Amino acid sequence: MVVRGLGVPGISQITANQKRKDYIMKDIRYAPIGVFDSGVGGLTVAREIMRQIPNEKIVYFGDTARVPYGSKSKETIIRFSRQIVHFLRTKDVKAVVIACNTASALALETLQPELDIPIIGVVAPGAKVAAETTRNGKIGVIATESTIESRLYTRVIQEHNPQAQVFGKPCPLFVPLVEEGWIKDPVTVEVASRYLEPLLATGIDTLVMGCTHYPLLRSVLREIMGEKVTLVNPAYETARELKCLLTREGIANDGQEVPEQQAGHRFYVSDAANKFRQFANTILPFGVDTTQLIHIEDY
Amino acid sequence: MVVRGLGVPGISQITANQKRKDYIMKDIRYAPIGVFDSGVGGLTVAREIMRQIPNEKIVYFGDTARVPYGSKSKETIIRFSRQIVHFLRTKDVKAVVIACNTASALALETLQPELDIPIIGVVAPGAKVAAETTRNGKIGVIATESTIESRLYTRVIQEHNPQAQVFGKPCPLFVPLVEEGWIKDPVTVEVASRYLEPLLATGIDTLVMGCTHYPLLRSVLREIMGEKVTLVNPAYETARELKCLLTREGIANDGQEVPEQQAGHRFYVSDAANKFRQFANTILPFGVDTTQLIHIEDY
Repeated sequence: MVVRGLGVPGISQITANQKRKDYIMKDIRYAPIGVFDSGVGGLTVAREIMRQIPNEKIVYFGDTARVPYGSKSKETIIRFSRQIVHFLRTKDVKAVVIACNTASALALETLQPELDIPIIGVVAPGAKVAAETTRNGKIGVIATESTIESRLYTRVIQEHNPQAQVFGKPCPLFVPLVEEGWIKDPVTVEVASRYLEPLLATGIDTLVMGCTHYPLLRSVLREIMGEKVTLVNPAYETARELKCLLTREGIANDGQEVPEQQAGHRFYVSDAANKFRQFANTILPFGVDTTQLIHIEDY
Repeated sequence: MVVRGLGVPGISQITANQKRKDYIMKDIRYAPIGVFDSGVGGLTVAREIMRQIPNEKIVYFGDTARVPYGSKSKETIIRFSRQIVHFLRTKDVKAVVIACNTASALALETLQPELDIPIIGVVAPGAKVAAETTRNGKIGVIATESTIESRLYTRVIQEHNPQAQVFGKPCPLFVPLVEEGWIKDPVTVEVASRYLEPLLATGIDTLVMGCTHYPLLRSVLREIMGEKVTLVNPAYETARELKCLLTREGIANDGQEVPEQQAGHRFYVSDAANKFRQFANTILPFGVDTTQLIHIEDY
């Protein structure tokens, strides 16, 4: 981990400390961003970060041994997320992005006060944009069971827009359908119609795709919801938010120095590294050479 | 854990040892059976054991924090299963039943030589009956991706019936459909038709329901496969096999003595104990009062 502000200041030490601080600040700027998800879905967030902030290097962790998170309890998701943050810190990350909606909804609030580096999730950026986008104040959120139950999207949307009405709908079959590769399949259209009908009936004009897999179903969702409903992709908003945060904190990589060991992005998983690499190569704009397997429960 | 044959034998100790052995053997007879699964599905196996061998008491573990197993690697499933067996042994079980097809297919062969108590899975009993049942030698197996990839069903079926042709088909959407409660839904019928058509085309006369959730779709499977195809439920065959094993090893509970601490079956999970209990109460013929949450990665 990169430590800021080491040492006890004294009059004779000011210059030395200033130098050290400069050095450390430089270090932090060139440190990578930790990004994690329950599996492969968070790669869509990583891709957005790479696109919007190309100077930054990413250390990605996918918890493929314990995926999915969407039906599991808050306590368990906090425990898993804490282990992952511990692991990412061993890679000297300067900030953490929770690229998983469920972990953002269930674990972020608990983990934030435990950390001395910035940590953001995907829920707040997506919720903020939805609150600003709606014209009639009616917003739909589709997500996993645990994300919907947490009511975090509702809470954040109403912080920005107290008059907004939020309609949540868990869509547990979407992730398995995407993973089966039935992206534009009639079965998927039928399932999506079933899930979305109650949302359509409420007259929403904005729909948050509150799970990293759902943007892959964008064309089916668009077909069912019609052209008048705005689809919000939290992955896009999160990359924007991260860019602002890095600049605000003075820790953005200015592209002047990329230490050799951080020349590329790095990928870690808790299971089936080869399978992950194949999937990553279909999502990311470059080939992933190696993916390293780790025992996440040891962290 | 119940230890058999403790102590160093000497001439003067024979009677004492014999007594101790008698006592230990008695203990073993009244010890519970450990049954585990990746989640709730294995309760269908537990239910069959309770029905066919009512004297036996069960210690059930469902790995709800890491469910599902069906898409994960052999190494990970072995690591998870080993932890679970360690946990079950702390409950002094006399035998272990792997109620999960994936864990039976991927971990049983590795764990068996590590143990000094009997351990059986659901694959071998199901495969044996399928091999004996088929008339035309063509057998279909539907299961998770990892179970099909392991080819264990094929191997065991051909050990019993070398001429048999085995056609495997992974059905990854079945578990999420069952968990969504869409048991007799038109979507489920459509998905099942899609999965089963290639199997129907091969002319199989026997179909193994090689995942604990699949027997819950029996009526849909029956409708698509027709009356002439025999459906094999490994849960039923496993309970029969367990009954023979306990008798053969002389460790069956004769019903003479049920120590107080073993008066009931016990249920443990790694996540969301309440949710598990609700589901268990819909599957089992009696109410489950308490389900205990444990950290399985500590074992």
